[in-house]
Amino acid sequence: MPVLRAALLVLALPLSAAAQNAASQNAASLGPGPLIIAKQGSFFVGGRDIRSETLSSVPNHTATGTVTVDQIYVRYQIPAGVTHTSITFIHGCCLTGKTWETTPDGRMGWDEYFVRNGYPTYVIDQAGRGRSAADPSSIGSVRLGQAPADRLPAVFSAGHEIAWDIFRFGPEYGQAFPGMQFPLESQAELWKQMVPDWSEALPSPNPTVSALSALAIRLGGTILVSHSQSGIYPFQIASLSTEGIAGIIAIEPGACPEATADMQPFTRMPILVLFGDYVATSRRWAPRLKACQAFVAAARQAGGTVELVQLPDIGITGNSHMLMQDKNSLTVADFLSGWIDNHIARPSQE
Amino acid sequence: MPVLRAALLVLALPLSAAAQNAASQNAASLGPGPLIIAKQGSFFVGGRDIRSETLSSVPNHTATGTVTVDQIYVRYQIPAGVTHTSITFIHGCCLTGKTWETTPDGRMGWDEYFVRNGYPTYVIDQAGRGRSAADPSSIGSVRLGQAPADRLPAVFSAGHEIAWDIFRFGPEYGQAFPGMQFPLESQAELWKQMVPDWSEALPSPNPTVSALSALAIRLGGTILVSHSQSGIYPFQIASLSTEGIAGIIAIEPGACPEATADMQPFTRMPILVLFGDYVATSRRWAPRLKACQAFVAAARQAGGTVELVQLPDIGITGNSHMLMQDKNSLTVADFLSGWIDNHIARPSQE
Repeated sequence: MPVLRAALLVLALPLSAAAQNAASQNAASLGPGPLIIAKQGSFFVGGRDIRSETLSSVPNHTATGTVTVDQIYVRYQIPAGVTHTSITFIHGCCLTGKTWETTPDGRMGWDEYFVRNGYPTYVIDQAGRGRSAADPSSIGSVRLGQAPADRLPAVFSAGHEIAWDIFRFGPEYGQAFPGMQFPLESQAELWKQMVPDWSEALPSPNPTVSALSALAIRLGGTILVSHSQSGIYPFQIASLSTEGIAGIIAIEPGACPEATADMQPFTRMPILVLFGDYVATSRRWAPRLKACQAFVAAARQAGGTVELVQLPDIGITGNSHMLMQDKNSLTVADFLSGWIDNHIARPSQE
Repeated sequence: MPVLRAALLVLALPLSAAAQNAASQNAASLGPGPLIIAKQGSFFVGGRDIRSETLSSVPNHTATGTVTVDQIYVRYQIPAGVTHTSITFIHGCCLTGKTWETTPDGRMGWDEYFVRNGYPTYVIDQAGRGRSAADPSSIGSVRLGQAPADRLPAVFSAGHEIAWDIFRFGPEYGQAFPGMQFPLESQAELWKQMVPDWSEALPSPNPTVSALSALAIRLGGTILVSHSQSGIYPFQIASLSTEGIAGIIAIEPGACPEATADMQPFTRMPILVLFGDYVATSRRWAPRLKACQAFVAAARQAGGTVELVQLPDIGITGNSHMLMQDKNSLTVADFLSGWIDNHIARPSQE
């Protein structure tokens, strides 16, 4: 794919807005053409059986039985002609694996774009969300009068209004930052992606972490790409075991490891922490950026190949927190692909 | 795909068990080869905004806001070289669209098999389940002390034990019917597919019904393939509007329309009701089969092209309720493909 490679070379340098637009137009005018898949499918990793007397609260069905919870759903596609190490995409708060698929305005998602560029991609739903089952037993126990209301799961469901702030679309609900790249005209489709988030009702660390570790080991090497609330997971996984982690890309992580933590695990793979635009003035995000900068400094001090990139610093402007869905999402993807090419060895040709 | 076509011709006749095995082995020895996709992606259909003061019950986040609920998630793949009308796969109780993907023992799911046979396939998650958001506001209102416990959603979560009976794996939990085709050695992977089912907490008819109607109209014609709890949906959709419904395949429907209902909508497209094996002795399924037989008789009486097939009657034996995951799932798929070829016109070549 010589045009894409050329685009990556261009992206190694800061881009003017005009150059960005030209690159996007090139990509669009190419047209995607057929996608050739060597293998695809879905499976689960992790999970444990629990027995409960309060599974259900509908008539004519027993409330007693065994269900399996804490597993993660994984959907994958392996292109014909793999050229790169696989990527595992881990969505953030209040969302599912849909995050990485078709954008709200109908453009190609990163799940497919990276496949087209020679990467096997694995897209998960976090434990307790999406196609990964939530544990219903506490709802049943309260409904059946066997437990008080405070035993209900603490659920976080982000309304459009607060999501506008979390996703950094603008200074106030309904108002966009100047130059905003998120396709706000299609925001209704994003709101449909949002699901109640049960994370706080789950054990800590989130069962997604051990399941992802098992997945990485099973894949024999994968690049963990996290986002927002899942931002800390790849670091938690590395602290459990660095086996199978070919690299970490933390996109706008809600948290980075403490700068005082053991940095040894983070010296064993290349790490990129990526932030979009409008961060400095965000009450929510500015402190997180600062904490990640402290982490990156500590990890580099310990000898790690760790860097933090703010997209405006390399000439890519206007990105929201949902940068994988922004209008320039493929420009950002090309930057990531270039970073991967510079930092992570390609798999040996078999 | 001449070998597949030949298999379909064979399948038009009742098959001996030996012939079934030979057909399966042929299919397996072919190997799938690369899958060529013209276009794929995902989107939502339907949905409405609700405002609530009890969205969340976690510290540091407002409980007030607007969320979007009742939409359905749709993932699709369109093969290069479309030869058939698209299929829309609608999962049943306590499950998600995962139903139609890779089987528990790792074989190709119907979602891909039909794509490989020239059908665009659309796989949905029902409203309130999987990647289609549930409405969390009643959980929040009870947890925050603003509503009594009986306002919690009535959730049905089927434990392994009751699912064994619903899925008709055998006469008692842990015991299999003789000749059972479900890959019971991989049952743990099926249990991981199961999610709490909020259907009873949703408006009636289920919002999935109107969303599917909108999808069918948008596609300009699709074959609705339902399963179990969703079995009645295609009929409910047809009663709303027959627009966009190229055909109905109801796989082991939990319910068929009443034989006394208005049959006119069901005379406007070919309809197949399909049951597997071991039905006659099942307390749960035998009455449903009988009710569907009464419906089919009434619809035929009204002039409809409607039939009910029990797989053992055409020589395909051993099928559970989860026949799209049974070891002979592709044999069943080939039978369906043959039925489609005999009843539904191919799209005109453009």
